Amino acid sequence: MKVAIFGAGRIGEVHVKGVIRAGHEVAGIFDVRREASEGLAKRFDCKVLDTAEEALNDPSVEVVVIGTSTNTHADYIVKSARAGKHIFCEKPIDLSLEVAEKCWEDVKDLNPFIHIGFNRRYDASFRRLAETVASGYIGGIENLTIISRDPAPASLEYFKVSGGIYKDMTIHDFDIARFITQQEPVEVFATGSVMVDSRIGDIGDVDSATVVMRCASGVQVQIMNSRRAAFGFDQRIEAFCSGGMIQVDNQNIDSTRLYSPERSAASARPMDFFLERYSDSYDEAWVDFFERVSAGKSPGASYFDGLQALRLAEAAGESKRTGQMVKVNTPAG
Amino acid sequence: MKVAIFGAGRIGEVHVKGVIRAGHEVAGIFDVRREASEGLAKRFDCKVLDTAEEALNDPSVEVVVIGTSTNTHADYIVKSARAGKHIFCEKPIDLSLEVAEKCWEDVKDLNPFIHIGFNRRYDASFRRLAETVASGYIGGIENLTIISRDPAPASLEYFKVSGGIYKDMTIHDFDIARFITQQEPVEVFATGSVMVDSRIGDIGDVDSATVVMRCASGVQVQIMNSRRAAFGFDQRIEAFCSGGMIQVDNQNIDSTRLYSPERSAASARPMDFFLERYSDSYDEAWVDFFERVSAGKSPGASYFDGLQALRLAEAAGESKRTGQMVKVNTPAG
Amino acid sequence: MKVAIFGAGRIGEVHVKGVIRAGHEVAGIFDVRREASEGLAKRFDCKVLDTAEEALNDPSVEVVVIGTSTNTHADYIVKSARAGKHIFCEKPIDLSLEVAEKCWEDVKDLNPFIHIGFNRRYDASFRRLAETVASGYIGGIENLTIISRDPAPASLEYFKVSGGIYKDMTIHDFDIARFITQQEPVEVFATGSVMVDSRIGDIGDVDSATVVMRCASGVQVQIMNSRRAAFGFDQRIEAFCSGGMIQVDNQNIDSTRLYSPERSAASARPMDFFLERYSDSYDEAWVDFFERVSAGKSPGASYFDGLQALRLAEAAGESKRTGQMVKVNTPAG
Amino acid sequence: MKVAIFGAGRIGEVHVKGVIRAGHEVAGIFDVRREASEGLAKRFDCKVLDTAEEALNDPSVEVVVIGTSTNTHADYIVKSARAGKHIFCEKPIDLSLEVAEKCWEDVKDLNPFIHIGFNRRYDASFRRLAETVASGYIGGIENLTIISRDPAPASLEYFKVSGGIYKDMTIHDFDIARFITQQEPVEVFATGSVMVDSRIGDIGDVDSATVVMRCASGVQVQIMNSRRAAFGFDQRIEAFCSGGMIQVDNQNIDSTRLYSPERSAASARPMDFFLERYSDSYDEAWVDFFERVSAGKSPGASYFDGLQALRLAEAAGESKRTGQMVKVNTPAG
Repeated sequence: MKVAIFGAGRIGEVHVKGVIRAGHEVAGIFDVRREASEGLAKRFDCKVLDTAEEALNDPSVEVVVIGTSTNTHADYIVKSARAGKHIFCEKPIDLSLEVAEKCWEDVKDLNPFIHIGFNRRYDASFRRLAETVASGYIGGIENLTIISRDPAPASLEYFKVSGGIYKDMTIHDFDIARFITQQEPVEVFATGSVMVDSRIGDIGDVDSATVVMRCASGVQVQIMNSRRAAFGFDQRIEAFCSGGMIQVDNQNIDSTRLYSPERSAASARPMDFFLERYSDSYDEAWVDFFERVSAGKSPGASYFDGLQALRLAEAAGESKRTGQMVKVNTPAG
Repeated sequence: MKVAIFGAGRIGEVHVKGVIRAGHEVAGIFDVRREASEGLAKRFDCKVLDTAEEALNDPSVEVVVIGTSTNTHADYIVKSARAGKHIFCEKPIDLSLEVAEKCWEDVKDLNPFIHIGFNRRYDASFRRLAETVASGYIGGIENLTIISRDPAPASLEYFKVSGGIYKDMTIHDFDIARFITQQEPVEVFATGSVMVDSRIGDIGDVDSATVVMRCASGVQVQIMNSRRAAFGFDQRIEAFCSGGMIQVDNQNIDSTRLYSPERSAASARPMDFFLERYSDSYDEAWVDFFERVSAGKSPGASYFDGLQALRLAEAAGESKRTGQMVKVNTPAG
Repeated sequence: MKVAIFGAGRIGEVHVKGVIRAGHEVAGIFDVRREASEGLAKRFDCKVLDTAEEALNDPSVEVVVIGTSTNTHADYIVKSARAGKHIFCEKPIDLSLEVAEKCWEDVKDLNPFIHIGFNRRYDASFRRLAETVASGYIGGIENLTIISRDPAPASLEYFKVSGGIYKDMTIHDFDIARFITQQEPVEVFATGSVMVDSRIGDIGDVDSATVVMRCASGVQVQIMNSRRAAFGFDQRIEAFCSGGMIQVDNQNIDSTRLYSPERSAASARPMDFFLERYSDSYDEAWVDFFERVSAGKSPGASYFDGLQALRLAEAAGESKRTGQMVKVNTPAG
Repeated sequence: MKVAIFGAGRIGEVHVKGVIRAGHEVAGIFDVRREASEGLAKRFDCKVLDTAEEALNDPSVEVVVIGTSTNTHADYIVKSARAGKHIFCEKPIDLSLEVAEKCWEDVKDLNPFIHIGFNRRYDASFRRLAETVASGYIGGIENLTIISRDPAPASLEYFKVSGGIYKDMTIHDFDIARFITQQEPVEVFATGSVMVDSRIGDIGDVDSATVVMRCASGVQVQIMNSRRAAFGFDQRIEAFCSGGMIQVDNQNIDSTRLYSPERSAASARPMDFFLERYSDSYDEAWVDFFERVSAGKSPGASYFDGLQALRLAEAAGESKRTGQMVKVNTPAG
């Protein structure tokens, strides 16, 4: 299939590689920053698009990747759906649940194939955990603990437009919690602190957060986030089940272990950051995307999944403000 | 020193051993169930006391261990303090914070040495963790995660008089959280579910609980409890700090690791339960007790510590009922 | 049973404790160094024996523990056997295989119960490993790797009378290899180097040794020894079987794990030395000893086991000198 | 640079990918089995060469990769060196040390750049281990233990022409031992057994082998090989140093850990086999190859390294036959 890439930033490059590795063709790259699209196009020997419309109007382009800034996602989704394209849109759909819901109203009758870029669903370890839980091999799930910490904070400029920690960072964890439990949280509690950088507090955000969720079944979920982990990218999950437990541990840069007079069996440090740790998951997502499109299946991470993650993030924000556990109403998906 | 033991149950036996191993003398054992005191006294070659007063009135007895049923603790504390004894009282002080506070009012002017039996403070691993945090070696603490799950639920009869999961089980975790952070939580949130046994729900309790606390500094604490862990006694702590992290992992019955076609490096299962896992901590507590009494120091786990754990447990109960994060007011210690 | 202890050194104390914990009685302690026996007797409230004969002639004494210097073992074995005592003798039986064989000739018609102090057979982890191998759960054993390194070298004086690394240190590994494989090595190769202290070389010994053995079945065994491991007492075993593998890993002083910018999941250091690491095994050996004596069973580590370990050690020494793999002829046990 | 590939088998494909990923060009593929070269050429959009001479005579081809059957390596090395090509030759150079030495005599005056394909030198974990040892951070190396076991035996046909386990399998370990210690073994001892498949014994080979080596410094090396590990590809190294130890552990297919009533913290199984486990090392070798050629440096694994590995393998074979530790004479490199 021919694929147009909108957005030539870091994540755009990831998708260019993913499309090529999956054996498909990048038809062109568009970015409002011309030098970005030109740089990326040159490195991967692709065409530069002058406008998004160039791809939308080209009937040979079957897939559009939306990796532009978040506030443009909804607009590109509507345009791409109307142009009959299959869509791969980065998370979050939008920073406003309202906008995201409105966008769906605009396109749902077109029944578009829209995949939301929750790449962690395609991580081999998370998948193994989810499959083990689903298999019932260790009984039913009772508790899920997700630890997700970045190695170091991004820039303050980034945080200002990020929508806050719950929509920007926890959003991945909201999604993976739903992916693993295969259940909808019905209650959300959140709290947070400023421990890393007081300027993050000055813009009304927190850098260290805790979220607790409950599903109707009684399953409880804890999410712990931080914008900084001194020892590196900290990505762990633990599913506690009635018959046992399965964890995903951090993945290290190599498999050495050091023994010194002070300490034993010290592992190497974790892989640096998400592009490294989740590298394979981006590729797997593309393989799955093309398979599902070809087979006429629904996406591996749907628009509804994107909306639900946003709903949980909004509930977390409200809980943080009020100190109250917030009920989440999930409309029929 | 000569030590009188009140209560000849499972924990009474632990203390008889601890006193002997610490090189001190058990002066006598009292229990309202005569056959219990006789059995224990026989096994350790001690004297049976007909009444508690026998010990309280004996000037050669310097220490009283209160390991009777919880609802008698406060009364024995008052009597022992008035008799001028040093006191080692099992946790919790009482199921009612009000009773425990009243008890203190009654004895505080006597300035008694009262040690509350929070044995986990004396576990070598928890202690190493606490010391590492306190040393600043890995920076300041930002987050503390405590996982505490029993291998299997006790009897329903036990649960009926236990005071509920927060006062019975989480009480240890409340204390260890304060011990490690060296800070007072100012906000408590709790939720819980019945996942293990519906009869636990029938008596108004939960068997699977989550507690989140915040200290004034912003430090966040998560506690996850369950009355059943299929793979065994699950006792882990993780202190996430600005410069690194220190964990306490479960301790296994041996150091074997099995490799099979299915899985690699499978460790032995955890030690069965608290008497085994925390065995050394009970002994260490006694060594410390006698050292502090001799040196005229304050106890390693004070009456105030006992009150604080109760306060947090009551706040957790209130939060569970209301869905609201509850403020905790700590009177000057 | 009443037990006489010959030898009031470090290992004598271990056995005094073991006998008491197993619920039996120490009838008296003898040592040629009077102050040693007096010190030990005082600490454990036992009687001091003026001579070994005092115990040998006392019909109420049923068990003799031989923990004296190695060159006196054979003599005490003969005397104790002739006096009709059950014997617990420290390893090695003697530094000379010839002497040890002669000793057996002298006592075998008395059919004495002689337990040789190979305590590691009673370590819970080694035992689990041996039982797993014996169960066939992971198929038949093909290779056994034993790593055994002391934290730091003993004194040069000790080494001078130690009989050399193979008889002093590897002797434990020879025994445990036979215990785990349940097979007799038929070929032994050994080499070694002086890496730790050149004075050890000056007295004709090595401080870093490798031994390879083959059993008639083809099973291969590797033993790696060193007199110094900077990170602590290094005691690991790995049984590679046709259907899997089982390892015994080092045991650490606590279960903490440290994460820092440099390294992840660094465990605590190993327990300091053999009295700590193998503490339980000494006690278990005594429980087993009394059970076997009472039940009329043969010892858990027999005189023949003691001879075999010596035979392998002598073969290792010969191989080290000649560079040749040495055949070991095992007389019918 | 333009690279010609001789040999279109499994390893030929690895090198085609490696050359492309390193950003260089595959000029053509030659294989005596035409269908093999055609298949590979088609998959990677390369040219098929009718003869090796086509590449040797093409002045634009700068690099020749020799991945043909082992008995043709020496001949292609001579031809390629005479044609002025840079050479990447698979290990072993030849099954006969004599042939390999003769080959060198024939080409040495041409001073060719010949890289021998010891890919494990480029594995990130082995490299980290080697660098840590070289840094002196944990003191000087005293002992090196290499465990290298295949998941399952290859075909009997393969074994018949493999040159035996020491030249076929241990050859990698001989090289990595020299790479890590940066020392030459001066003595080699080897033994082995047939534990996996009696037909391997029928052709005069073993399937389970132990090799012990000593360097002049006293450093000892143990290598344990098996043609079958039920739990998967078993590739571990442990460098014991005067100030500590560094290990490389197996690498698993994911980072999950399972807890069940039987066992705790069971990791996923190791990566299946060498193409998976050492995948990155093949790529890294190519990056290094081109860098060294461009910079006029000597190869990362030289012809001398190839000769030394063969010398050690021949010594191992001799030791296995004679039961004697064999001296290895290393000519000045």
